[in-house]
Amino acid sequence: MFRDVIERMAPYVPGEQPRPGQRLIKLNTNENPYPPSPAVRQAVARAAAGGSLRLYPPPDAGEFVAAAARLYGFRPRMILAGNGSDELLAMLFRAALGAGATVAYPVPTYSLYETLATMQEARVVTVPFGVKFELPVDSLARLEARLTIVCSPNSPSGTNVSRETLDALARRLKNRLLVIDEAYVDFADENALDLARRHSNVVVLRTLSKSFSLAGMRLGLCFAHPSIIEALGKVKDSYNLSRLAVVAGAAALDDAAWMRRNVERVRRTRAATEKRLRKLGFEVPPSSANFVFARLAGRDLAPMGAALRRRGILVRHFPGSSFADALRISIGTPAEMAALFKALAPLVRGHAASKRNGRAESNA
Amino acid sequence: MFRDVIERMAPYVPGEQPRPGQRLIKLNTNENPYPPSPAVRQAVARAAAGGSLRLYPPPDAGEFVAAAARLYGFRPRMILAGNGSDELLAMLFRAALGAGATVAYPVPTYSLYETLATMQEARVVTVPFGVKFELPVDSLARLEARLTIVCSPNSPSGTNVSRETLDALARRLKNRLLVIDEAYVDFADENALDLARRHSNVVVLRTLSKSFSLAGMRLGLCFAHPSIIEALGKVKDSYNLSRLAVVAGAAALDDAAWMRRNVERVRRTRAATEKRLRKLGFEVPPSSANFVFARLAGRDLAPMGAALRRRGILVRHFPGSSFADALRISIGTPAEMAALFKALAPLVRGHAASKRNGRAESNA
Repeated sequence: MFRDVIERMAPYVPGEQPRPGQRLIKLNTNENPYPPSPAVRQAVARAAAGGSLRLYPPPDAGEFVAAAARLYGFRPRMILAGNGSDELLAMLFRAALGAGATVAYPVPTYSLYETLATMQEARVVTVPFGVKFELPVDSLARLEARLTIVCSPNSPSGTNVSRETLDALARRLKNRLLVIDEAYVDFADENALDLARRHSNVVVLRTLSKSFSLAGMRLGLCFAHPSIIEALGKVKDSYNLSRLAVVAGAAALDDAAWMRRNVERVRRTRAATEKRLRKLGFEVPPSSANFVFARLAGRDLAPMGAALRRRGILVRHFPGSSFADALRISIGTPAEMAALFKALAPLVRGHAASKRNGRAESNA
Repeated sequence: MFRDVIERMAPYVPGEQPRPGQRLIKLNTNENPYPPSPAVRQAVARAAAGGSLRLYPPPDAGEFVAAAARLYGFRPRMILAGNGSDELLAMLFRAALGAGATVAYPVPTYSLYETLATMQEARVVTVPFGVKFELPVDSLARLEARLTIVCSPNSPSGTNVSRETLDALARRLKNRLLVIDEAYVDFADENALDLARRHSNVVVLRTLSKSFSLAGMRLGLCFAHPSIIEALGKVKDSYNLSRLAVVAGAAALDDAAWMRRNVERVRRTRAATEKRLRKLGFEVPPSSANFVFARLAGRDLAPMGAALRRRGILVRHFPGSSFADALRISIGTPAEMAALFKALAPLVRGHAASKRNGRAESNA
């Protein structure tokens, strides 16, 4: 009944979402541990009260885009709003890639790219990051792919690619699309948003899910040359953002100071978390995101993830991947991180002990 | 930079949305003139207050799907929630149609189908409705298209196809997909939802935009065999509905009595509107929707639509279509319809007069 490629494909599996009432410490999907600006709640309550929900939303998400234009200093014509940046990624793949077209990106990275490529029957070419997660600019540029994507800061590694390096890649790709997925960039020291203004082939994606604490609201932003925004508008659902999403997004952006305060708290906790994980023996590349990538090279950490789960703590493990020896741990509140380390320390020691005894903790 | 088909294609143009503060009588996009259930506002305010917007929504829109399962008597495994039924249509096209695959539907109908087909590089085969908008079952069945769509009640005609006729078409299509787009069905005397239970090739789509007065909230529902729901889940964005959409949808469905009261009011106004339009000389097929299709055969009604616009009343005209001699008029409140007729009557008389004098009202 469906296309062969759909019948065959495995769905993208998002991180576990606890059911209502389940009490878990949730460090598995990179949500912000702090609530969104109170202005969001007020804007939503106001919009829901007026009875205007009976009317279609503005197709261009006007108020939200206007707030983004003010905050980031872009013209509205260079901004497109998405139902999360996942929707913007899907639009980019749909607009750019026909069957057999090439999409290229460095790995390991966000696994949704592969899912979206499969749906388009596109050819995926991946290039490994360097040992310190350096961007393989040369290899990527030489591929001359229809679409090149760089997630920076990258998931799951948390590492950042400098604006300068991305600028060099954009130049080398000439008129080929370069998408810079900056979902986590508010937690980094620098960003590449300006490249969307300076190069007509660069698309920068942002989300309000992480730094603005609005994962539940589905709000993404795409910055690019007006001709790119126009093309994406053609593959966009007419009314992709609800009226409540539009006002929530505008209110959140208008209170960017609230976001920055939360980002500062997360960054402080991140520094302490990296230090403590390294002390426990993990390799942790310096993170520019709101999570850390903790590795015990060569050891399958599925049992450790499962043991944490039994103690009520969710972290992300990627079974079957080339980084099954790592856990991706979102930065929670200091209290949540304390609970994590309380559970984690004996597991690492137990692991080290069982290693000495030649056995591994069971996953059962 | 983008696929040829995207570069070439014209975007789908939704009906005009007034800017905030513009005072217009809006009879152009089939919104409900009455507000949604107060339970929606309460559910949204509660969900926005708790700080849980920082967390991702349930990927399966659990609460909303559970409410639909209760109201319609389906198992949750047979229901998929969409960011409006437009998103569900897009998913169906994406999952079912590769380049060159055939999609068939009777015309005139919802123009989004063509836009979605173009994006998939699918082959569109259309079959005209009968003179009284009878469904051409035989011609449609013989096409053996990968995907057949029937909008019932249909837009722009407002006419209904009987459950019996749709049942016959479903049988004749065997294991080929039949999508029944029931966006307007709550305003009709019968529906075909049961066919999604009885045939493993039938998909029924519903929306909360019209009868539930929630166009601004983006809520659609898809009913089908679990294997279809599973396949569509693969092409779905992981978190396609926000947390607020999920609770709003659940609250609206749980107060279906509110919806039914509003539907009754709209149906009464619709009967009066049809009668009055016919008296003015329009041909009006009996409507099963929340709008009427008013035709002056052979006359371009663009000038009449523009004249109404100047008087602050928006109705829908489809320029360049085979039904440019018609206006699609949404059913508003009795007061709004009175204002419409006050403006419309002299235009029809003027038109008749200018017809006698051999000239047409200018569109300028």
